[in-house]
Amino acid sequence: GDAWEVVDDHHLEASYEFEDFAAALAFTNDVGELAEEEWHHPDIHLSWGEVGVEMWSHDIDGLHESDFVMAARMDQSYAEYGDD
Amino acid sequence: GDAWEVVDDHHLEASYEFEDFAAALAFTNDVGELAEEEWHHPDIHLSWGEVGVEMWSHDIDGLHESDFVMAARMDQSYAEYGDD
Repeated sequence: GDAWEVVDDHHLEASYEFEDFAAALAFTNDVGELAEEEWHHPDIHLSWGEVGVEMWSHDIDGLHESDFVMAARMDQSYAEYGDD
Repeated sequence: GDAWEVVDDHHLEASYEFEDFAAALAFTNDVGELAEEEWHHPDIHLSWGEVGVEMWSHDIDGLHESDFVMAARMDQSYAEYGDD
């Protein structure tokens, strides 16, 4: 889940794996909390055992330092989920 | 948000609108709680002010009564969000 990709020089994408739906939902809430803190809101795709994230800076329609800061914070948060 | 569509005779899709990210995240948690209760887990797409839901019964790779039950329960839950 720590492999972010830059897509079309425009947005960041990553996918995080979990052991079940509940863990994926919990992580979605972590990401939501970060999003509100940083006031930077990714698109989140929650499904069984997986959270996909897509993120860019809408005001510049591309990537900004804040996207990479958020990406790093999500990875940090994901690390707390152990070996999933 | 109460307009479910049957897509390809295979799954149900709906999109619910909210006034901001926090409300959309709260509804995502409502849907997650229903999903755990009914043990039927949709795909959820959370973005600013919007929650998209895609749902089908994986065991029959199509639609079952349980999908429509979940759909109705989501609509009911959404109704609590007022006029958003």
